[in-house]
Amino acid sequence: MTQGDLKTLPARTGTALRLAAGDSLKIVNIHGTQVVDCWAFNAHDMTEFMSMPHTRIGCRRLVPVVGESFVTTLRRPILTLAEDTSPGVHDTLIPCCDSARYAELGFENHASCADNMADGLRQLDIDPPAPPAPLNIFMNIPVGPTGRLELVPPLSAPGDYIVLRAEIDCIVALSACPHDIFPVNGADATPRDVAYAVTKA
Amino acid sequence: MTQGDLKTLPARTGTALRLAAGDSLKIVNIHGTQVVDCWAFNAHDMTEFMSMPHTRIGCRRLVPVVGESFVTTLRRPILTLAEDTSPGVHDTLIPCCDSARYAELGFENHASCADNMADGLRQLDIDPPAPPAPLNIFMNIPVGPTGRLELVPPLSAPGDYIVLRAEIDCIVALSACPHDIFPVNGADATPRDVAYAVTKA
Repeated sequence: MTQGDLKTLPARTGTALRLAAGDSLKIVNIHGTQVVDCWAFNAHDMTEFMSMPHTRIGCRRLVPVVGESFVTTLRRPILTLAEDTSPGVHDTLIPCCDSARYAELGFENHASCADNMADGLRQLDIDPPAPPAPLNIFMNIPVGPTGRLELVPPLSAPGDYIVLRAEIDCIVALSACPHDIFPVNGADATPRDVAYAVTKA
Repeated sequence: MTQGDLKTLPARTGTALRLAAGDSLKIVNIHGTQVVDCWAFNAHDMTEFMSMPHTRIGCRRLVPVVGESFVTTLRRPILTLAEDTSPGVHDTLIPCCDSARYAELGFENHASCADNMADGLRQLDIDPPAPPAPLNIFMNIPVGPTGRLELVPPLSAPGDYIVLRAEIDCIVALSACPHDIFPVNGADATPRDVAYAVTKA
């Protein structure tokens, strides 16, 4: 297996790609500060998709560790966390940002992960569904002792990456999160480019 | 406003009901040990429903406290936690049990909250969607310091109840969780009856 070329996912944008079972997707946090929202759908049935609630009970953790799998709404492995050079802090608790979120925060016409997911899927001629709860790669949402959630910068370092291995043929959508209000994309709240590469099985 | 009659929701079964904006639903944990899975849908558009991820970011907690609202996929309040005599331990992290879950655990043809939700909605002549992530009322899934999830008995006492107030016209489905393997429905893993009552606005 040879890793394909690293492609840039520009700040604030999204994409989607098809993975065959056994393919791997590397996602590189070039600057260390950027969150990448990620969705995965069964390529043969978009109504089956990667599910954070089913994943949490499957691994009995808020977030899988290397070697564990994200599972679908039918409790089947879809993506396995094959490698992770970051401290392993990712978020499965909060939804993707969307126009309703930015309206709450006082912003109209703000780019969003929901729109980025839809754009990516449309590029593959797929009619985008409402966004399921995403895997928020590199996102740091610590849970306090009373269940309070904090929104703080990622703990990843520049160049940290994760590798997700497809367990079934799937469609993966990625969004370089455009959020620039709370410091979820770094202390300076500045969305930045990330990179990704596919290794074919 | 007068509270309607308390109705029994028998162990292992589900139901669904229509609430108008302003109506309140009381759910009583008769024995203190029973989990009740709960879903809510916009009565005028079933594609908008109570969402645990959107609720968590809305209140910045794993679980709302009294006075806070559960919100929909469009980030609008749908149910407000108006009263809670229990210690306030409910779960928003794990999915409802379903036939795939019981198959994993070695049981075929086991009653499930997913089937109960569907049965309840069909009683209202509503075509059931795939179950969204539920509010698991009285369910105790503590999150350990490393993000590990435990499945342990409810902390509620016999007779503890919550009251949910409808913020919009909605369809609420309830399931007296039939799980009898892990001790989520009490240390003796025995599903039991609960009761509910509607107070019209």
